[in-house]
Amino acid sequence: MSYRALEQHFRRLGHLSHAAAILQWDEAVMMPPASGGKRAEAMATLQVLIHEHLTDQRLGDWVEQADEERAAGRLQEVEAANVREIRRLVRRAQCLPGKLIQQSAEAQLRSEQAWRGKRRDNDFNGFAPLLSEVVVLRREAAQRLGEVLGLSPYDALLDEYEPGCKAEALDPVFARLRAFLPPLIDEVLARQAAETVHTPRGPFPIAAQRSLGETMMRAIGFDGERGRLDVSHHPFCGGVPSDVRMTTRYDEHDFTSALMGVLHETGHAKYEQGLPSEWDSQPVGVARGMSTHESQSLLSEMQVSRSREFLEFLMPQLHDAFPDAVRAQPEAYTVDNLYRYFTRVRRGKIRVNADEVTYPCHILVRYDIERRLIDGTLKVDDIPEAWDAGMRELLQLSTAGDHRDGCMQDVHWPSGAFGYFPTYTLGALTAAQLFATARKQHPELPREIASGSFEWLNAFLRDAVWSQASMFTVEQLMTRATGETLNPSHFEAHLRKRYLGQP
Amino acid sequence: MSYRALEQHFRRLGHLSHAAAILQWDEAVMMPPASGGKRAEAMATLQVLIHEHLTDQRLGDWVEQADEERAAGRLQEVEAANVREIRRLVRRAQCLPGKLIQQSAEAQLRSEQAWRGKRRDNDFNGFAPLLSEVVVLRREAAQRLGEVLGLSPYDALLDEYEPGCKAEALDPVFARLRAFLPPLIDEVLARQAAETVHTPRGPFPIAAQRSLGETMMRAIGFDGERGRLDVSHHPFCGGVPSDVRMTTRYDEHDFTSALMGVLHETGHAKYEQGLPSEWDSQPVGVARGMSTHESQSLLSEMQVSRSREFLEFLMPQLHDAFPDAVRAQPEAYTVDNLYRYFTRVRRGKIRVNADEVTYPCHILVRYDIERRLIDGTLKVDDIPEAWDAGMRELLQLSTAGDHRDGCMQDVHWPSGAFGYFPTYTLGALTAAQLFATARKQHPELPREIASGSFEWLNAFLRDAVWSQASMFTVEQLMTRATGETLNPSHFEAHLRKRYLGQP
Repeated sequence: MSYRALEQHFRRLGHLSHAAAILQWDEAVMMPPASGGKRAEAMATLQVLIHEHLTDQRLGDWVEQADEERAAGRLQEVEAANVREIRRLVRRAQCLPGKLIQQSAEAQLRSEQAWRGKRRDNDFNGFAPLLSEVVVLRREAAQRLGEVLGLSPYDALLDEYEPGCKAEALDPVFARLRAFLPPLIDEVLARQAAETVHTPRGPFPIAAQRSLGETMMRAIGFDGERGRLDVSHHPFCGGVPSDVRMTTRYDEHDFTSALMGVLHETGHAKYEQGLPSEWDSQPVGVARGMSTHESQSLLSEMQVSRSREFLEFLMPQLHDAFPDAVRAQPEAYTVDNLYRYFTRVRRGKIRVNADEVTYPCHILVRYDIERRLIDGTLKVDDIPEAWDAGMRELLQLSTAGDHRDGCMQDVHWPSGAFGYFPTYTLGALTAAQLFATARKQHPELPREIASGSFEWLNAFLRDAVWSQASMFTVEQLMTRATGETLNPSHFEAHLRKRYLGQP
Repeated sequence: MSYRALEQHFRRLGHLSHAAAILQWDEAVMMPPASGGKRAEAMATLQVLIHEHLTDQRLGDWVEQADEERAAGRLQEVEAANVREIRRLVRRAQCLPGKLIQQSAEAQLRSEQAWRGKRRDNDFNGFAPLLSEVVVLRREAAQRLGEVLGLSPYDALLDEYEPGCKAEALDPVFARLRAFLPPLIDEVLARQAAETVHTPRGPFPIAAQRSLGETMMRAIGFDGERGRLDVSHHPFCGGVPSDVRMTTRYDEHDFTSALMGVLHETGHAKYEQGLPSEWDSQPVGVARGMSTHESQSLLSEMQVSRSREFLEFLMPQLHDAFPDAVRAQPEAYTVDNLYRYFTRVRRGKIRVNADEVTYPCHILVRYDIERRLIDGTLKVDDIPEAWDAGMRELLQLSTAGDHRDGCMQDVHWPSGAFGYFPTYTLGALTAAQLFATARKQHPELPREIASGSFEWLNAFLRDAVWSQASMFTVEQLMTRATGETLNPSHFEAHLRKRYLGQP
């Protein structure tokens, strides 16, 4: 039976990905400074092996025959879905020649390495040729993928991170954000200007922060028997579903960034840990896509952890963790004050520091630019001007001349990740919609959160999202979970309620 | 050119081994408790891929053609040696059918897993059938290997760990140990009975132990930019030459086992770090064999670190590391006392706790038994009796009825590693011979050690051993380094000098 051959083949592929994921975590968290060269070679070989497995000549026949087995009713529903996901991966891999993949990998590595220094030196002109090379190669890949998949070049890239998503569907959603966010930001800032907020002052000992983070991540449902929390320069959630590796970064003068970071990554981690282990290492068994993944982290961080109810649960534990800081500044450690602190809105140039209200504006600027780069209507040289125009329009900030905190701030484009940015905002919208559904289905939810009880919420998410893995399309997943496809009004309502007190 | 094809192929193999080594370290040091199942599957797939690469059908032709290239003088000396090592690996891999490898892996896993519990329960009868299964399969492998390689079955197994070594060469060496050790142990014990030794009492804070270990391992030449030290249940030295991962285990009441353990593993680590990076991931570029590897750790621990001179170097650092313990018990922290403590000889049942004088007796017992198991003249059921007889003869101890601390104490046989034990003692002999050569070449060496200067010694070892990798056979390596092949009289002289004060 060809389906079994496919399953076997992808099990092996899954094991190679397992090795690659742990090596990647190790590189970021454990590897000594001078070991990077040989590690990069070993990792590249794993990627080559993975690509070889994805372009194995036998796959075409197997997929075709498995399709016949499916048509003949000889496959279970999940097996049929697995064939669908396998076909998608194989088609994507097979329409890119090995040479293009290698050229792209090299150009992206060069560009990403140069980016660090050029960004520090605010040197866009020095960086532009390297980025142009990446853009040219991504456009070629997008063209080839698009032809085979029947998609526009940009949609073909988007599809890698968000299967089935098209610009056509994004445009009206983003147009709505573009219309309502700028005036809403004005309103929120005017309202918050009248508030007094006490910024928690440290020091907050690292050991106490670590222990608080570990306690909170377990409290909201992280399984510590199948994962761990460590430190890395850039926080991430990696590893594999059976062994999830989260990282964070501690600042002795600010406990909030590590804590909210851990609660964010725990959202990703619970999704991975909640994937069905019996489908492990099969394409149908992986997370659905980046927007769904980001919805889980943003639901955890934004919808839950920055809510007043969660802060009621957190407060006594904060008092236990940082007795000296609380004693020195009691006015900062009230639910009211911390709620104001955790929902403070500011217009800023940096995406990763943005609050949930201004964040989508950063994405809109990038989405507009990267689409035009891929369809060829914007040149790399003209990015700074487009960036400045976008930031002025949406956030009333100029980045003219400031490339470092302007168009050079993110690693995505230097590393070739065009089509990724939209998933952050799709994730925020999805999180709002899922959480609205949860509250509607279970009105006790806010009270449960205040008392530190997350069983119901986790069961809801497990049922609606985690256990479904890649069984359905994103649209089907959302419709099954919330009764409708993606609807930005839930996000808008969330912002209006939290930031303007509107019902 | 076929040689280039071989090189390319083995580079890829080296990268797979790199991944496997880091995953193995991760499993022992980092992996959370419930993640083992999926990890074992991923590791098994890497091993399968490694075996597939070693039995690739193209290899036979490539090796043959590379041999012609060598004969035609078109290869450099190191390339010719690489072909020789490749041929060895390929021949070994190809004469074992995949099915036997899989059966062996499964039987060894079952036996090793059962061993933990059965050992705890002192249940040899319950364990014997599992071990028998392993022995049967190892004998089959030994037979097949031996036929192709023209070796006796036991020699064929020995050759895996110690290329080119035969029982015929081991026998006279071990006979000599068997003759001189038991009376020498009597003499040493009689002499030491008159000595007073103060056992250092703790507590020794773990953080101070860790910091002392890190300081000492760097002092003797570990490159901390290309490796790290962590904690695991069973200490080991793993990772890859560009990223050596040492582990140890701390006991708050005894600083000496972790410290000597670290100094031992650092010997392994320096060998790995000293391998020529330009031959990395080629068979000629790996360590020569297990006895040479063990010689480096034993030279570091036994020859150097337990010497009076080294303790002179260590003493002030001990005083800095453990001021409270030193203040409470000053009599323990003198060079004289610690030297007596670190060279204390005791007859005991447990190999891993043995001092360097009694240690070879443990190996002689195992060597005798495992040879007879493989040549079929001893049955698994009769191991306890043979063990007891051997221990009585060599160490005047009975293990009758005590399987836990008798024939079930080691993981080697349960996991199929027959032919490994002799390399420990070959390593001790090699270490003594290398160190005797070093002292003869450089009479200042003891004074340098006392002052914490290891440059000359490391340069000697780098030149004689590390930088040679697998360029030469073990015999050639020893002859080049010391002017003679393995000669146990250096080890005997070392023991007589250190333990009996004989010149």
